[in-house]
Amino acid sequence: MATRTVDLRSDSVTKPTEAMRAAMAAAEVDDDVLGTDPTAFRLESEVARMLGKEAGLFVPSTTMSNLVSVLVHCDIRGSEVILGDSSHIHIYENGGISTIGGVHPRPVKNNEDGTMDIDLIEAAIRDPRGELVYPTTRLICLESPHGNTGGRCLPLEYIDRVGELAKKHNLKLHIDGARIFNASVALGVPLDRLVQAADSVSACLSKGLGAPVGTVIVGSKAFIAKARRLRKTLGGGMRQLGFICAAALVALQENLGKLEHDHKNAKILAEGLNQIKGLRVNVAAVETNIVIFDVAEGSKITAEKLSKLLAEHGVFVMPRGPSRMRMVLHHRISSSDVQYTLSCFQQVFSGLQEENGN
Amino acid sequence: MATRTVDLRSDSVTKPTEAMRAAMAAAEVDDDVLGTDPTAFRLESEVARMLGKEAGLFVPSTTMSNLVSVLVHCDIRGSEVILGDSSHIHIYENGGISTIGGVHPRPVKNNEDGTMDIDLIEAAIRDPRGELVYPTTRLICLESPHGNTGGRCLPLEYIDRVGELAKKHNLKLHIDGARIFNASVALGVPLDRLVQAADSVSACLSKGLGAPVGTVIVGSKAFIAKARRLRKTLGGGMRQLGFICAAALVALQENLGKLEHDHKNAKILAEGLNQIKGLRVNVAAVETNIVIFDVAEGSKITAEKLSKLLAEHGVFVMPRGPSRMRMVLHHRISSSDVQYTLSCFQQVFSGLQEENGN
Amino acid sequence: MATRTVDLRSDSVTKPTEAMRAAMAAAEVDDDVLGTDPTAFRLESEVARMLGKEAGLFVPSTTMSNLVSVLVHCDIRGSEVILGDSSHIHIYENGGISTIGGVHPRPVKNNEDGTMDIDLIEAAIRDPRGELVYPTTRLICLESPHGNTGGRCLPLEYIDRVGELAKKHNLKLHIDGARIFNASVALGVPLDRLVQAADSVSACLSKGLGAPVGTVIVGSKAFIAKARRLRKTLGGGMRQLGFICAAALVALQENLGKLEHDHKNAKILAEGLNQIKGLRVNVAAVETNIVIFDVAEGSKITAEKLSKLLAEHGVFVMPRGPSRMRMVLHHRISSSDVQYTLSCFQQVFSGLQEENGN
Amino acid sequence: MATRTVDLRSDSVTKPTEAMRAAMAAAEVDDDVLGTDPTAFRLESEVARMLGKEAGLFVPSTTMSNLVSVLVHCDIRGSEVILGDSSHIHIYENGGISTIGGVHPRPVKNNEDGTMDIDLIEAAIRDPRGELVYPTTRLICLESPHGNTGGRCLPLEYIDRVGELAKKHNLKLHIDGARIFNASVALGVPLDRLVQAADSVSACLSKGLGAPVGTVIVGSKAFIAKARRLRKTLGGGMRQLGFICAAALVALQENLGKLEHDHKNAKILAEGLNQIKGLRVNVAAVETNIVIFDVAEGSKITAEKLSKLLAEHGVFVMPRGPSRMRMVLHHRISSSDVQYTLSCFQQVFSGLQEENGN
Repeated sequence: MATRTVDLRSDSVTKPTEAMRAAMAAAEVDDDVLGTDPTAFRLESEVARMLGKEAGLFVPSTTMSNLVSVLVHCDIRGSEVILGDSSHIHIYENGGISTIGGVHPRPVKNNEDGTMDIDLIEAAIRDPRGELVYPTTRLICLESPHGNTGGRCLPLEYIDRVGELAKKHNLKLHIDGARIFNASVALGVPLDRLVQAADSVSACLSKGLGAPVGTVIVGSKAFIAKARRLRKTLGGGMRQLGFICAAALVALQENLGKLEHDHKNAKILAEGLNQIKGLRVNVAAVETNIVIFDVAEGSKITAEKLSKLLAEHGVFVMPRGPSRMRMVLHHRISSSDVQYTLSCFQQVFSGLQEENGN
Repeated sequence: MATRTVDLRSDSVTKPTEAMRAAMAAAEVDDDVLGTDPTAFRLESEVARMLGKEAGLFVPSTTMSNLVSVLVHCDIRGSEVILGDSSHIHIYENGGISTIGGVHPRPVKNNEDGTMDIDLIEAAIRDPRGELVYPTTRLICLESPHGNTGGRCLPLEYIDRVGELAKKHNLKLHIDGARIFNASVALGVPLDRLVQAADSVSACLSKGLGAPVGTVIVGSKAFIAKARRLRKTLGGGMRQLGFICAAALVALQENLGKLEHDHKNAKILAEGLNQIKGLRVNVAAVETNIVIFDVAEGSKITAEKLSKLLAEHGVFVMPRGPSRMRMVLHHRISSSDVQYTLSCFQQVFSGLQEENGN
Repeated sequence: MATRTVDLRSDSVTKPTEAMRAAMAAAEVDDDVLGTDPTAFRLESEVARMLGKEAGLFVPSTTMSNLVSVLVHCDIRGSEVILGDSSHIHIYENGGISTIGGVHPRPVKNNEDGTMDIDLIEAAIRDPRGELVYPTTRLICLESPHGNTGGRCLPLEYIDRVGELAKKHNLKLHIDGARIFNASVALGVPLDRLVQAADSVSACLSKGLGAPVGTVIVGSKAFIAKARRLRKTLGGGMRQLGFICAAALVALQENLGKLEHDHKNAKILAEGLNQIKGLRVNVAAVETNIVIFDVAEGSKITAEKLSKLLAEHGVFVMPRGPSRMRMVLHHRISSSDVQYTLSCFQQVFSGLQEENGN
Repeated sequence: MATRTVDLRSDSVTKPTEAMRAAMAAAEVDDDVLGTDPTAFRLESEVARMLGKEAGLFVPSTTMSNLVSVLVHCDIRGSEVILGDSSHIHIYENGGISTIGGVHPRPVKNNEDGTMDIDLIEAAIRDPRGELVYPTTRLICLESPHGNTGGRCLPLEYIDRVGELAKKHNLKLHIDGARIFNASVALGVPLDRLVQAADSVSACLSKGLGAPVGTVIVGSKAFIAKARRLRKTLGGGMRQLGFICAAALVALQENLGKLEHDHKNAKILAEGLNQIKGLRVNVAAVETNIVIFDVAEGSKITAEKLSKLLAEHGVFVMPRGPSRMRMVLHHRISSSDVQYTLSCFQQVFSGLQEENGN
């Protein structure tokens, strides 16, 4: 049994701090379904302000945030959405936009850096006055940082260009910003500027920021009014919501400043791992708090096996395929935890080499 | 400005107690989406045990609980559900079972006591091997207490008979138990016995029980496994869910014993209102914590106007139509609040008579 | 084996005449999916003109016509439609508007004459700016003649009043006119006047008119443009459609004038049946070409059994419940067929009395 | 005005022959919705037999055939289908499987020859017992010949291998065989052997075969029973269907043997065009009756413009992008028509060079 625990499975596993617990205990609350919870309102307004949008709406998860956003933008039957073929919405959200929302996805290839080529996006757009056999494109979705490619951030200019394309074709632009706070810090671009081109953004509070639960959707007042109704339909309306929101307000204050530290830790971790024989890490691709790496082909160990060996040392990681692993840094991981983790990896791999050597 | 506030709009407005706040602050939590939050697990198990079912699942609202339950029972395209024509699912849940779930509702007339005639239910059932033009009935939904008819409770024998009918036709039975704890207390029937015939039940914790947020769906393990997946699709999965669940566990302990008191207060309130000239209250129909009454035809005041006049005294009620009003008792309403409320009504109505007298 | 066949199961069973076959053989056709079939265009224009609407669209069945109409009027997610609780759309179309279209039905009680009380309709309307828990009413559907109540016709004034109600609440009005030609003849009201208040009408050609296949949807040009796209989505677009349309054009010419004769035959049949001991027929309710009757309670014969005994004489009828039967007159049924049918009934029932007498 | 017309826009434009017209005029028909039309039954049985499946079902179009097939295989909410990213279902059917059916598409890259790499298909399969965030893969769709890549045929061994993969993962396999008769002829593989691995096939009769309307879905009896119900839901059930089916039966007899001739004509056309300066045609890729070619970059003419110039000569073709054109051969195009078409192209392009030369 390990004496120390370093949980790198996800930044969603972070346990709330004492300050968050205290804020919950003292929160001013009311019935948010009736629209009168002051703390929920405060959080929604604050996040909206930070992202430069008119209004915000708290939902229990980024999955609901993305689902509601796509469905509100595509509220007419026969809508199509253009999105990345390795995007979270397309791969990790149960296909909800189709199976629940009846929206047709038109995936476009995601490059290594999370972008989709602008001309491929444009070629995928279908005109509502066009062929009788075409659905109508109504929305483009971007994801930044892009989780499936290791947390890489879409450049500001790229987002702006997609925004222009959307406007030109009378489409909406949604950004899945599950880690948008990390992107802003990593790029050194203010949040509101970064998402200026977007009509709606999912801003998750329970990943790097460490709030216990929830995501705020931001957009125009008209958009949020429709989103509120759809949240009710899905059953995402909650009564004394202020408790959760109080913790999230603390998370914004406490942890926004710490994201830079997470990014540094991620770099250190990536560089350290890259020194280990049998691992391949693209250090340059580590832009935020995610480290994705592959066990090298000759090393004769699967990601599954490796994660089990590390768990014996109290280090928890997430296999993402036969040879691929993912680790996510967050405010509960110190510099010392990173060093400890590296030492555990070294131990495991020297053990392997001895085995192989015999 | 009134010096006293008596909020009778709904039992969902109840503000949590100090004990709930303390429990939240101290809750043991983990990532429930990864299935490891111990407090969520404890709450789900406890509610499942109380209702005599194998497993439970926490969701943010009864709307989601009903939506998930109907959709899991009706997971094959072309399903039809039989439900009351004034049931909450049919009237107050945005038509989500159709607009989100593609399930076809077949409403059957609700009687004054919330029942539907058994022979009307049976006549509405459609055989999957039957006419090519029929959808396939897969589910019957009951609601007890039935909110729209003033919180009246379905008798145990009635529920059992509908359960037998469902079995005979190979259908499932879901109970919308937004106030099922009240029904158990009012009928003097243990919870598990009361819902024995049901395949699934929505048990709301944020109404009479006063928990800040949430509902637990209960059913078989296989049912709950499917429900968990669908909760994720809808975006109802939450991370450090234990906080909310800790408060709900306190609510179960603190307030279950108080429901009887709420029911007594409701009776007293109904009897008192019935004494007032210009009001008609069916006192016998007040079985739980809801009082619905009509402003008599000759009284020349609308429900809207009446609610405004009462609000000036700090008494908040909910209009439910041009002449109909609803008041809901809960653990935050004392016997003295009830007396105060009655005195406010008397004042308002004697004022009206003077006006009319002039 | 019977020497004579009288098929009264439905007016959809009518076999086309020689003139229709000849018209098919000679039809000028092209690819209607590309929008260039002249005969399809001629039929669509002709039916639109007759019903006083801007444009028409041929679809393979009234089920598709109703489905397309409801879905086009309710093209925004979260729509609700008000319709009769015994209407064809609600009972006999697989619940397609929900299971395929995600539209929420709000059934209102159908009276004996096929109407719904206007005040009940109005009470069921839900304002889009209203409660967060309400879907948005977008459409009212009427059916005339109303099949399930024996082909009774909605009076012109009634349709007009519902049309006014729809306008007042900014709703659309669709008429399921599976037998709208019969209604026009029976009421003595020109078709275009009869459906003047409607935004769309399903006009079936393969029932009383005797065309082999198809229904024309009529409405505004903008509505039909959307309907054409949805027809394509459903797979209802057909290539050399002109063949079928040529036969339908003949049907319009040949059989429209004969509907009155069908109605007279229906009356004669109803009156004759009503003379037979053991049958109850509401003769006054026979307004068009449908005769619905019940086997009297004491007569000890089921509808199922009766239909089998009649089949031995070559008379085919449709049981519609344990004791209820339906017969539909059409252009292939002569006055002599009606007399023959009545004589068969008499034979069957005198046989029964002898059996019972023994 | 051209004296001669050569319509190469599609093989769906073919006008029926005299024999088909005669067959329609003489067809034995009945009410197919009641399941008693003998000619429809004969056609369905014949196509099922040819493709080696238990049963068949006539539908108005291949779009409906594909829609019904995908929806029947994916009849449980939360289903995902793997299909080609340039397949007809994904690109040219209005996204109906999602917008009408709620099925989530998982497109996999189509290679130049219409195949998808087997390992990419396998990597896209999602296990129902897997991650809570995954929809469940239930179906793989192939298309052969693959229209968007110029009518190239999937090799028998490829189809068999995909069939094995489907079986291994407990998935179904559907083949969109809009031109499956052409594939069988081009590959020299009997139809039933070619689609042996498939659970269902759409076999279109109104393309190369020249029937006026319709497609037959084939599969197991249980599958077709479900398909029949769904056809009714969509409104694809038709009354005296035998007329259309009679023409289709003639088409099978008359034109199946002529497909080889169409393929030869396509080759001749492709080779001829490839001689013209300014055109690029991949002659080797012309396997069936489709010729797709690009106007070379330097030639300063768009596909749009080119099609207009050809139309002046009575030659009709279909632009498929700014510089791409498509021509489809069929039984109404003779060898002499092909020579005429080539001469028109030559005229147009020499005209262009003179213009450019000035």
